[in-house]
Amino acid sequence: MQTTNLKRRHLLATTAGSMVAAGLAPALAGAQTAATPANEATTAPVIKPLPAYVSWKKPDSMIVHTPTTIETKRSAFGTSVITPTDRLYIRNNLPAPDASIVADRNAWQVTIEGVVKPQTFSVADLKRMGLETMATVLQCSGNGRGYFAGKPSGTKWEVGAAGCVVWSGVSVRDLVAAVGGVAKGMAYMTGTGGETLPEGIDPKSVIVERSVPLSAMQDAMLAWEINGEPIPLAHGGPLRLIVPGYSGVNNIKYIKRLAFTTDQTQAAIQKTGYRLSPVGQKGDPSQPAVWAMDPKSWVNAPLASEGPIKAGTIQIQGVAMGGTQAVAKVDVSLDGGKSWKPARLVGPNLGKYAWRQFALATSLKPGTYDIACRTTDATGRVQVATSPENTGGYLNSGWIAHTVKITVV
Amino acid sequence: MQTTNLKRRHLLATTAGSMVAAGLAPALAGAQTAATPANEATTAPVIKPLPAYVSWKKPDSMIVHTPTTIETKRSAFGTSVITPTDRLYIRNNLPAPDASIVADRNAWQVTIEGVVKPQTFSVADLKRMGLETMATVLQCSGNGRGYFAGKPSGTKWEVGAAGCVVWSGVSVRDLVAAVGGVAKGMAYMTGTGGETLPEGIDPKSVIVERSVPLSAMQDAMLAWEINGEPIPLAHGGPLRLIVPGYSGVNNIKYIKRLAFTTDQTQAAIQKTGYRLSPVGQKGDPSQPAVWAMDPKSWVNAPLASEGPIKAGTIQIQGVAMGGTQAVAKVDVSLDGGKSWKPARLVGPNLGKYAWRQFALATSLKPGTYDIACRTTDATGRVQVATSPENTGGYLNSGWIAHTVKITVV
Repeated sequence: MQTTNLKRRHLLATTAGSMVAAGLAPALAGAQTAATPANEATTAPVIKPLPAYVSWKKPDSMIVHTPTTIETKRSAFGTSVITPTDRLYIRNNLPAPDASIVADRNAWQVTIEGVVKPQTFSVADLKRMGLETMATVLQCSGNGRGYFAGKPSGTKWEVGAAGCVVWSGVSVRDLVAAVGGVAKGMAYMTGTGGETLPEGIDPKSVIVERSVPLSAMQDAMLAWEINGEPIPLAHGGPLRLIVPGYSGVNNIKYIKRLAFTTDQTQAAIQKTGYRLSPVGQKGDPSQPAVWAMDPKSWVNAPLASEGPIKAGTIQIQGVAMGGTQAVAKVDVSLDGGKSWKPARLVGPNLGKYAWRQFALATSLKPGTYDIACRTTDATGRVQVATSPENTGGYLNSGWIAHTVKITVV
Repeated sequence: MQTTNLKRRHLLATTAGSMVAAGLAPALAGAQTAATPANEATTAPVIKPLPAYVSWKKPDSMIVHTPTTIETKRSAFGTSVITPTDRLYIRNNLPAPDASIVADRNAWQVTIEGVVKPQTFSVADLKRMGLETMATVLQCSGNGRGYFAGKPSGTKWEVGAAGCVVWSGVSVRDLVAAVGGVAKGMAYMTGTGGETLPEGIDPKSVIVERSVPLSAMQDAMLAWEINGEPIPLAHGGPLRLIVPGYSGVNNIKYIKRLAFTTDQTQAAIQKTGYRLSPVGQKGDPSQPAVWAMDPKSWVNAPLASEGPIKAGTIQIQGVAMGGTQAVAKVDVSLDGGKSWKPARLVGPNLGKYAWRQFALATSLKPGTYDIACRTTDATGRVQVATSPENTGGYLNSGWIAHTVKITVV
């Protein structure tokens, strides 16, 4: 079996088995076919300490699945629109490069190809070229995987492989304008990550290199700052490609090459990985790539896990995103979707790629309730009831699966 | 002299001189008449470590004036609109209450008075009553004091006693509606802080209790969250009164009483403290109180302190606030105000009480430049060239004083 072979080759190829220790063998072999450790089950998680490279995260806010897959607790998002960086999830396909790359952030280089005048820029150069600031939902492609009934393999993320953060950087538009524009015939924007690749293995089998449709460049940026500080190494600093509206894997960390290309990259992470494969089938290029995110919302309070919920007036609250479109409205149900009430959008609107906080004040009597929410984007697209299952367990945005059951006393 | 007497009485009254050790004697005696320690000079600051209660702040981003006056470096604001909490300034008039008050945040109580049905609420009660989220500029009344030519006494803040943060809480409007509305004849909203007062001294001489005009309640809130996390003790958690558009001192930490009153409080911090007193005069109630903030902007990059600035295209960037009104525009000058160019407002608009990031791309040849900026609010009010000097050194928003000189090589 190909997966097993890849794993074995990787085990042999890496020195000291360090990447295996970091829990990366499944990721390297393609998350959609990887075995799931028993301790990733969501029902009785084994509490693990934060690994050293993200020791600055808030331990009480995080669920450590593996050293490279760390989730924000559903109760820890807060209501202030922005997810603090020390509560933001971690999901890395390869171990981060050596920390020396953030010792002199301005020296990091990125090569721009597939343009009229290909050129290499340092971060210092980019900072002089332009400045944009943009809030986006950063969400792992597999967020919600834990709610798929078919139990696809891979990390059993619930809602917490997502956050809303503010990026600062240079827009790809400004960058491309400075190098004469995109060369003729290009159909994709392809970003390559700067991770160190294990030796003795075909680079294409492990490299983090993703292609997105050319149209996605319109609002994309090369970012050096997150939430008001230089991007931490664990989140892709010194420089990260941000493709707003597209799932996490398309937002290339440590970007070293941004190329406009006629075709999608042949890297395994694009060719066979992150595909919406019919259940039981492996990924292949004929299947849809995991790209744009869908309208999605979920309730963050009240939660049964946070203690007894007393009868009376209560604020039901959560977050709603439109994917590539603005959120227009959110409806909330107390009876598992039999009836709906419009929620109120709360607080500042940070733009169409950000999420919105919503709240519904309601009076609850003692009893049990199935609290659901459902968002509609500005084009009228409604969050689906159930997302189609797929081998990799990607893009689960179904409102039924995200419903929370509470008991009011 | 009254100041000296107050100080001496305070020294005698406090146990173990702990508040003196914390640098609070000047604050207690009224900042506008306090002596300034020599090591607060801005030209050659003595680098001090962060005190234990804010050891979680980013040390490289902060200037520690005293244990209770800690400033964000001008180079450390970033460009992402929101100031991360671990870079936000600290200015406390009294030491924070014991940390036990944040062990059970929901149990903290606030009494609402001067309403039709006075009542006491716990934070748990408030969380069920409503939810609002709002971004505001939090700015110390004395921010910019270090730029007043007359060298008023008090901490020599430059630009860094300010930040833009997001609060979540219940609006005072919703709260007041729940208690039957404001009682007849009330003209002020008066907040009382929950700090422990030293014994043996008239409470009114030290208590943090401030009155603002009743109209300020419209957008005010009682907040329990800052930037997505529970408000840290050092910033006023579990519960802080936020009066958007009003300077920091009016945003009462550890609020234990919110009262609608016919008159301003007789507390010294209101009666004689935080007044715009003519230079050389002590504060008295006939002088304007330090309340609403004015339109103000400043450049954060480039700065001479951040290394050589090479000729070529560069982004001049900074922040602009309107005080109680939205920012309409920002103009930038390279020649100390002889000529102006319109800057571009960057990134999401978080509402009229937030600041805006601005940027101007320009090409600079070798030479020296006086980089100034000047904002105009939505009502057409223009940032002043020079703020009037006053005894306390409050509300310095003059653009001339905030100009930065750079040398381009």
